[in-house]
Amino acid sequence: MSGIRIAVAGATGAVGIELLGLIDERRFPFSSLRLLASARSAGSTVGFKGSSLTIEDLALADPSGVNIAFFSAGADRSRAFAPAFAEAGAWVIDNSSAFRREEQNALIVPEVNGHLLADCQNRLIANPNCSTIIALLPLAALHGAFGIERVLATTFQAVSGAGGAALDELNTQTRTVAAGGVPEARVFARPIIHDLIPSIGAIGANGFCVEEDKMVFESRKILECADLKISATTVRVPVPRCHSMAIWTRLNKTATLDAIGATLASAPGIIVADEAPSPGDAAGRDAVYVGRIRRDPDDPLGFWFWAVSDQLRKGAALNAIQIAEELIAAGRVHAQ
Amino acid sequence: MSGIRIAVAGATGAVGIELLGLIDERRFPFSSLRLLASARSAGSTVGFKGSSLTIEDLALADPSGVNIAFFSAGADRSRAFAPAFAEAGAWVIDNSSAFRREEQNALIVPEVNGHLLADCQNRLIANPNCSTIIALLPLAALHGAFGIERVLATTFQAVSGAGGAALDELNTQTRTVAAGGVPEARVFARPIIHDLIPSIGAIGANGFCVEEDKMVFESRKILECADLKISATTVRVPVPRCHSMAIWTRLNKTATLDAIGATLASAPGIIVADEAPSPGDAAGRDAVYVGRIRRDPDDPLGFWFWAVSDQLRKGAALNAIQIAEELIAAGRVHAQ
Repeated sequence: MSGIRIAVAGATGAVGIELLGLIDERRFPFSSLRLLASARSAGSTVGFKGSSLTIEDLALADPSGVNIAFFSAGADRSRAFAPAFAEAGAWVIDNSSAFRREEQNALIVPEVNGHLLADCQNRLIANPNCSTIIALLPLAALHGAFGIERVLATTFQAVSGAGGAALDELNTQTRTVAAGGVPEARVFARPIIHDLIPSIGAIGANGFCVEEDKMVFESRKILECADLKISATTVRVPVPRCHSMAIWTRLNKTATLDAIGATLASAPGIIVADEAPSPGDAAGRDAVYVGRIRRDPDDPLGFWFWAVSDQLRKGAALNAIQIAEELIAAGRVHAQ
Repeated sequence: MSGIRIAVAGATGAVGIELLGLIDERRFPFSSLRLLASARSAGSTVGFKGSSLTIEDLALADPSGVNIAFFSAGADRSRAFAPAFAEAGAWVIDNSSAFRREEQNALIVPEVNGHLLADCQNRLIANPNCSTIIALLPLAALHGAFGIERVLATTFQAVSGAGGAALDELNTQTRTVAAGGVPEARVFARPIIHDLIPSIGAIGANGFCVEEDKMVFESRKILECADLKISATTVRVPVPRCHSMAIWTRLNKTATLDAIGATLASAPGIIVADEAPSPGDAAGRDAVYVGRIRRDPDDPLGFWFWAVSDQLRKGAALNAIQIAEELIAAGRVHAQ
């Protein structure tokens, strides 16, 4: 195990930084660690566990010899550079949307469909969209226990879901507004401080935005339930980190609230909270927090719940690390 | 008309201040204006249209001679003092929750059920909950055209919905966070800046919070549809003003998206926006802005839309003023 050579592409991004923190925190086993990023960052150094690592230019990096490559550098760079790492023998765990819809690439939430890692053939594994991961932990648990007929979700998504620059923008705008100034927007189309942006990504011909379409496609693929009825409204909120969502779902069979609560509480990765958990409660933590579970008064099969989780952790970096840990546990990583 | 004597109880609150602005802006006809507030504010003066008005103590105020009294001083003070104004012959338009559930008190959104004002007997009229008003403008238009079978709403509610002190708290917390400090909460149970509070009001035995229950009861009463299937998740967001909501609804009969859009665009008080309207777009304006109208891909009768409006205006003060204007137009106000 100690011979595993890992690479982190997009090491200077919000998810990359979180990945490095988790590699340390979880004592992820590795013998060597390469950091890759854009040409702009290449040559600069990053401190990690007492040593100083020099960032390589992803576009020029030699993929050979890497056992696990975490990609979190955007879909374009994943398309351009990730396949070479997989071809050179690495398991690539890609946090972008580049390969999620490809049939040959597994799309994995370890608690839900991690078993696919034991014998998947394609070495390029897609890490799902952040909101989808957070929604699916509770939804998959309920689907397994009772069957889910339908899902309607409204999300409250943190700015860091759009990257470190978006987080910087919120913080800058916070200072500007505090000083009585007019906030400026660069990352987002308009200022987000003290406001909302009620769509995420371009709006398609069906009226749904990219983020909403991702939740539909990815949920169906991960749950292996092509006819799952699911749609969403995704909204950006002026919160630094943690995505929240109000979910209404309809089960295939009746279940008491106690049974629903017990199912969720015993599911891996979920903490059922007594009160309504907020982004502030979930920040920096691993679990998906679920609260406000209540029956739809108009539908014996329907109920509402609230879910919130740190989208940089379980929604991105932690899920990627867990995929890697599961590949190792399944004996799929052959270190030299 | 110029002989109408009005009183504003709660004149120093967030809604009271908005009311005074609208009385001026809309050239609301009045011959005298009395401002009433708590003992703490009594004796202080408020500038209005070039003159200086002295605030009276609501608890000591003589209700006689008032034609229209706007109450926006909280449910307890409405219960204690509003009936005396109605008994003394005033029309009371009460913005609190005190009388909304009483069968004998009309609960009015003028665009929806303003016709009730022509012959309602009880002189104490309730102004609905802010989120309910905003949701009902589009929902009532759709209900009239197609019939609504079901509503599931998730709200994003501004802090000023909890009053002026809550708005001050957001602004103070914004400055604290901008300066690197730890924000303190007094009005809300916890800091709201850069966070969410996923319930509004106490949570009842059914798992729904007070704000969610209000939307159910009040929507049914205003639409005169006791069996309307409606439930909600209401969330406080760090936005100064304007309540937003993602609404999923199911019609009783099929309708094209064009027909739905045309119905909403031609309904009074609604502006259908091309893009997704945000709180910042709606602040200080009168309309309920509706956008992101799209068909539920899984249900031929279901669709989603987004609505946002200034809850201090259409959600409170403007709706109250419109009720007064409609009472006057219906010849129900008999000025001396």
